[in-house]
Amino acid sequence: MTSWVPVPAGSHFTIDNLPYGVWSRADGERRIGVAIGDHVLDLTAVAAAGLLDGALPDAARVFGTPTINELMSRGRPAWSAVRRAIGGLLSGDDRSVERMLVPMSEVTMHLAFDVGDYVDFYSSIDHATNVGRMFRPDAEPLLPNWRHLPVGYHGRAGTVVVSGTPVVRPCGQRKPPDAPAPTYGPSTRLDIEAEVGFVVGVPTALGARVAADAVADHVFGVVLVNDWSARDIQAWEYVPLGPFLGKSFATSVSPWVVPLEALAAARVPQPVQDPQPLDYLRSAADWGLDLAIEVRLNDSVVARPPFSSMYWTVAQQLAHMTVNGASLRTGDLFASGTVSGPERNQRGSLLELSWGGAEPFELADGTTRTFLQDGDTVSITAETATGPRIGFGEVTGRVDPALG
Amino acid sequence: MTSWVPVPAGSHFTIDNLPYGVWSRADGERRIGVAIGDHVLDLTAVAAAGLLDGALPDAARVFGTPTINELMSRGRPAWSAVRRAIGGLLSGDDRSVERMLVPMSEVTMHLAFDVGDYVDFYSSIDHATNVGRMFRPDAEPLLPNWRHLPVGYHGRAGTVVVSGTPVVRPCGQRKPPDAPAPTYGPSTRLDIEAEVGFVVGVPTALGARVAADAVADHVFGVVLVNDWSARDIQAWEYVPLGPFLGKSFATSVSPWVVPLEALAAARVPQPVQDPQPLDYLRSAADWGLDLAIEVRLNDSVVARPPFSSMYWTVAQQLAHMTVNGASLRTGDLFASGTVSGPERNQRGSLLELSWGGAEPFELADGTTRTFLQDGDTVSITAETATGPRIGFGEVTGRVDPALG
Repeated sequence: MTSWVPVPAGSHFTIDNLPYGVWSRADGERRIGVAIGDHVLDLTAVAAAGLLDGALPDAARVFGTPTINELMSRGRPAWSAVRRAIGGLLSGDDRSVERMLVPMSEVTMHLAFDVGDYVDFYSSIDHATNVGRMFRPDAEPLLPNWRHLPVGYHGRAGTVVVSGTPVVRPCGQRKPPDAPAPTYGPSTRLDIEAEVGFVVGVPTALGARVAADAVADHVFGVVLVNDWSARDIQAWEYVPLGPFLGKSFATSVSPWVVPLEALAAARVPQPVQDPQPLDYLRSAADWGLDLAIEVRLNDSVVARPPFSSMYWTVAQQLAHMTVNGASLRTGDLFASGTVSGPERNQRGSLLELSWGGAEPFELADGTTRTFLQDGDTVSITAETATGPRIGFGEVTGRVDPALG
Repeated sequence: MTSWVPVPAGSHFTIDNLPYGVWSRADGERRIGVAIGDHVLDLTAVAAAGLLDGALPDAARVFGTPTINELMSRGRPAWSAVRRAIGGLLSGDDRSVERMLVPMSEVTMHLAFDVGDYVDFYSSIDHATNVGRMFRPDAEPLLPNWRHLPVGYHGRAGTVVVSGTPVVRPCGQRKPPDAPAPTYGPSTRLDIEAEVGFVVGVPTALGARVAADAVADHVFGVVLVNDWSARDIQAWEYVPLGPFLGKSFATSVSPWVVPLEALAAARVPQPVQDPQPLDYLRSAADWGLDLAIEVRLNDSVVARPPFSSMYWTVAQQLAHMTVNGASLRTGDLFASGTVSGPERNQRGSLLELSWGGAEPFELADGTTRTFLQDGDTVSITAETATGPRIGFGEVTGRVDPALG
């Protein structure tokens, strides 16, 4: 299938993708759209014109809201029907929606969904091993539970922000190991975590469990996530209850939500798991995803983490998150954890790239970094490495100085 | 001030209290109310009749919503004005709202507010010391950071439920220390945590900090919290990222939100802190709260934890939670952590009451407990121990068997 809308070579937004987002013009009114090439198709207008009624009888209402939550709540048959209808409008001979295309350069993107709960996993074996080697050099790098369950924790949903939002360097308590007491001040070890996030569409009732093989009935789509982290604040606070202020100041997500359905051809077997996980963590289908991620710091590519190396899949994460009966809400976001591959240039955090700050690395402009400096911009992109090209756009953010 | 509404001796809901809640009759329509004696004053009707317009010009709209979030967002002057107006309607000679009183026995209570983020602190020095002594018997019971900052973490907002909701025993992975591998099954160490929770009214922008002395400008009210905990699931999962499935299956809160303003006379100095905390954690005013908590398991009172013994106050928790610039949303809930006093009968969890399961305790019916059995009902109540009697009602829940 090809589109009559021009799609420049290398564009992330092909007819095979059709990701959803929320955008506005200068008047600020939020509308739902789908990305195609360098344009946004105004779905609020398309639906108001009745062009999606065949797929979703109340499409005008669903696409008349300022988020995609209502669409996401409708379930997989509705998602597929709407996607087919949009694909048809953009690929047939009939160009009646041409006047509803808006150049991307003219729009401002917003957070596409109201976030329910935000959960962050820790599912890269290379990342967890690197962190273990740095922090516990004389012990087994992976903790005893790591190969038995996808370790995760809840983050702050209220500070999930859309790509482009500046990130103010956070202040807080830090205590170097040899200092007698903590001090207050701006973080001096500000870091990123390149992650992939999954957005829940169909909710569940309290007490229900979601089987690993039912993941596509509940997860609507996929985004890129930068889980900004203040390593000095985190190191002092996190025992015994986990990360809190070291993470809660900001989590950036990409504006375009790629439908899980669009990634069908990128699904690949996950790495072999040893030991075999318990029954509830097994799925019949493959839920590895072959995505090539790229992390840029200013003008330098600093890492290319391969998502296919993740030890735990989205299906296992969802099954684990609900095995205790915890309910899901439309808009729940769960992220993979930092994506790192086995190679040095595949590490998805500066903590790993600089080996805890001990090994500065060089940027294209000749300067070096361990952690982030004020004014630095970090951008994370990804596209499929198997199947037709599907891109995620980017999640980007600039570091602003701490407030006085 | 006394009310013309009969307030039985010992009632929690005196004219000095006036807590807000959301209730319905058989038709299920959610309405906002205030508790007085054994009645609910239907504020949705009171506001629709124009009787609160003097305090809040758009009261009919604010009290026409199914939660108190809109009221909470309006800020302290509005909260005070509405409270004064309601007090006047219930205490003067004019009994025009008498027909808007509904017997409590005829209503169903609901969650009063939409929860934004849920944060759980760990602010009782006796609780943290007990846990430390149990889990690290040969080490200093308090970890190095504990006296420097209020340790906390994010919990699952989507599974905060109103008092009375049955709690299904969760399943998950557990691994006893001497077992070779984890197994899957129902938790065998199901516990409670008796806590006090604070509900945010006025939000902040990303990047803003809230000074400890500004707590009353942001916190609207106070509830009781039972942070149900599966100790076996928690013990296996929680290193290094903190509690997750061991807590996320359910957190119960009391239906009536007691205005922080109502507790003015119960404010007392907090325990002396040594070392002195950093500047941002200091408040000029006293923010200890002298509340007497009572925990009942079936028909037995099993603990009477004193909230005045808490090491970290609500003001310090709020200042800490926002010191990194994390924003607040209306409806954010943050809880104190398990409230335990220094005495054995003041411990707010079964983990402490049974000393990790090693010392069963006896109930009034002659049976013993370490952790919860199916069919057990736990109810937590509290009232002020200084100043006029202000009660919180209760947060209660029955344990239902695990799902097959």
